[in-house]
Amino acid sequence: MSRADRVADLLAERSLDLLLVTNLVNVRYLTGYTGSNGIAVVGRDVRRFITDFRYVEQAAIEVEEFDREEGPLDFIGALGDGWPEGELRLGFEDDHVSVRYHRRLQEVVPERISLVAAGGVVESLRAVKEPQEVERIAAAAALADEVYGMLREQGLVGRAEREVALALENEMRRRGAEPGFDSIVATAERGALPHARPTAVPIARGTLVTLDLGARLDGYHSDCTRTWATGELPDDLAETYELVQRAQQAALDAVRPGPEGREVDAVAREIIEAAGHGEHFGHGLGHGVGLEIHEGPRLSRSAETSLVTGNVVTVEPGVYLSGRGGVRIEDLVVVTEDGCRVLSATTKELTVVQ
Amino acid sequence: MSRADRVADLLAERSLDLLLVTNLVNVRYLTGYTGSNGIAVVGRDVRRFITDFRYVEQAAIEVEEFDREEGPLDFIGALGDGWPEGELRLGFEDDHVSVRYHRRLQEVVPERISLVAAGGVVESLRAVKEPQEVERIAAAAALADEVYGMLREQGLVGRAEREVALALENEMRRRGAEPGFDSIVATAERGALPHARPTAVPIARGTLVTLDLGARLDGYHSDCTRTWATGELPDDLAETYELVQRAQQAALDAVRPGPEGREVDAVAREIIEAAGHGEHFGHGLGHGVGLEIHEGPRLSRSAETSLVTGNVVTVEPGVYLSGRGGVRIEDLVVVTEDGCRVLSATTKELTVVQ
Repeated sequence: MSRADRVADLLAERSLDLLLVTNLVNVRYLTGYTGSNGIAVVGRDVRRFITDFRYVEQAAIEVEEFDREEGPLDFIGALGDGWPEGELRLGFEDDHVSVRYHRRLQEVVPERISLVAAGGVVESLRAVKEPQEVERIAAAAALADEVYGMLREQGLVGRAEREVALALENEMRRRGAEPGFDSIVATAERGALPHARPTAVPIARGTLVTLDLGARLDGYHSDCTRTWATGELPDDLAETYELVQRAQQAALDAVRPGPEGREVDAVAREIIEAAGHGEHFGHGLGHGVGLEIHEGPRLSRSAETSLVTGNVVTVEPGVYLSGRGGVRIEDLVVVTEDGCRVLSATTKELTVVQ
Repeated sequence: MSRADRVADLLAERSLDLLLVTNLVNVRYLTGYTGSNGIAVVGRDVRRFITDFRYVEQAAIEVEEFDREEGPLDFIGALGDGWPEGELRLGFEDDHVSVRYHRRLQEVVPERISLVAAGGVVESLRAVKEPQEVERIAAAAALADEVYGMLREQGLVGRAEREVALALENEMRRRGAEPGFDSIVATAERGALPHARPTAVPIARGTLVTLDLGARLDGYHSDCTRTWATGELPDDLAETYELVQRAQQAALDAVRPGPEGREVDAVAREIIEAAGHGEHFGHGLGHGVGLEIHEGPRLSRSAETSLVTGNVVTVEPGVYLSGRGGVRIEDLVVVTEDGCRVLSATTKELTVVQ
């Protein structure tokens, strides 16, 4: 059953006839189109894809199972007609469509068609990966492991954080991928900022280096964080490392179909809280990864969605000590029938790289 | 007068008391914040900036003239209070706020505050650059010129389009900038696609190569296209080059404060139409450039905004011959009191690079 067929099933459950897909990531997922301007309309017997003149030739190659049309740049003009007959309920992605675009849709879509807020339909499919998607993500994860291998060989001490970030990103490009997000290379007290940006500061000996990097390969992302030492560590940082490593392993052991995201989050959080560091773990345990670097399902204190086979999520607890440094350890895993398969292969034993 | 003060003036003209700024580019323009999650509220005496815990330390450094708050990730919770007293009209960026977010705003914002669609306020300020913004854009343009110089020295024939694209982007990074958009290196028949993606095909002798590249430096973009020859050209392509060059120069000569965007567009378009190639110039003449690679004002068949001193726009006519190749020549210019200053210095004489 095609992805569009599965969308049609989900629409039926919501008493919708059609879905207007405007989020480009969702358009890509359904149609195969990888350009930067395009929309789709999906229903039981409707497979419409519209792009503008710039992408017509590209769409002819990429989009196979949809009827292709050329429309104006904002597509509004194309949505005045081409609809099936009768009274219809048309879902739109209310988490993506702007208030202005929605008003224009109301003006141009025939009156017999009612617009219904229906965001998240395609995202709910995307959260469960098909085997070939898992393999693409695994390939992106393997590439990140290779980058870690290169960094370990090159060494870190004396290089600017920024230089290391550029080198690791170029290694991805050399291997045919792109950085999937802004890489983090955060040493010393900057390690206490979960989203620090690499600076011109040279990396010192005897501190922690948090490396958070991921590749986008063939559209799919990977995400992996390691915190390395650049020499012997002060006791408090060494203990923090051991704590985060233990919490991360416990959370990995809890990943399987069944538990809600918040239950897995709690496994790591309770260990960190028991050690007195609850307030130093200010973010969620993890997030889904796929065509987007952040997608469903979430692993966080408030996540009520249960994990299912085929989810791909990060497991990344962290402890951040303001002014001192931070530790985060992150693996990418796919939920399997009896647990999970870890896609990140770089060791998590405390690694000294000088 | 600060940017926020000028926003307050524009609000008064629209009978608005406050503006909720959610578009991150606009937030950056007003507050200086360069992180990836933050909003602002601006009014005559209101300067609120809200970010989440991840960016509190960064905001403390970057955001000076706004009152800084820490809010939840989606900020909705922070918008329940903190408002001035009385009945207020609160503008929101209706071209940016999603239907879902708007519904949540309606739920959380006190009833005495009415939400009013008000997109484009900050964008209208951003379209007119301050002198220091022009200098940043000029620096990004100079960097693009240096990249062209490098490409000319390295040569093109025999290299894959993709390899050339990667090399030019790495040159930007080496110089402390980033590619501002996906670079185009399109040769032979791919030159007929205005947005072709670089392929693994080696560049041949005796054809055209369209190079469209730009740097982002210190937040600001440049944009420059040159079409080079890799040897002696067939007559039709040489004539097309001469035509586009002539149209581009005529349009440059027409750029000054006063004319509407469509009038400048028409200058180039009429020359191309007179040569029988009107249907082969399918896009607008140009677009504004600044914190975004595409912003106001536009130069196109439908653009009714008049140019004013301080606008920074591209001037980029093109002629695309399906199956044969294409020519586009693009300069970046700033509108001055008596004409324009061209920020792109790379020659437009037909250049042979082998």
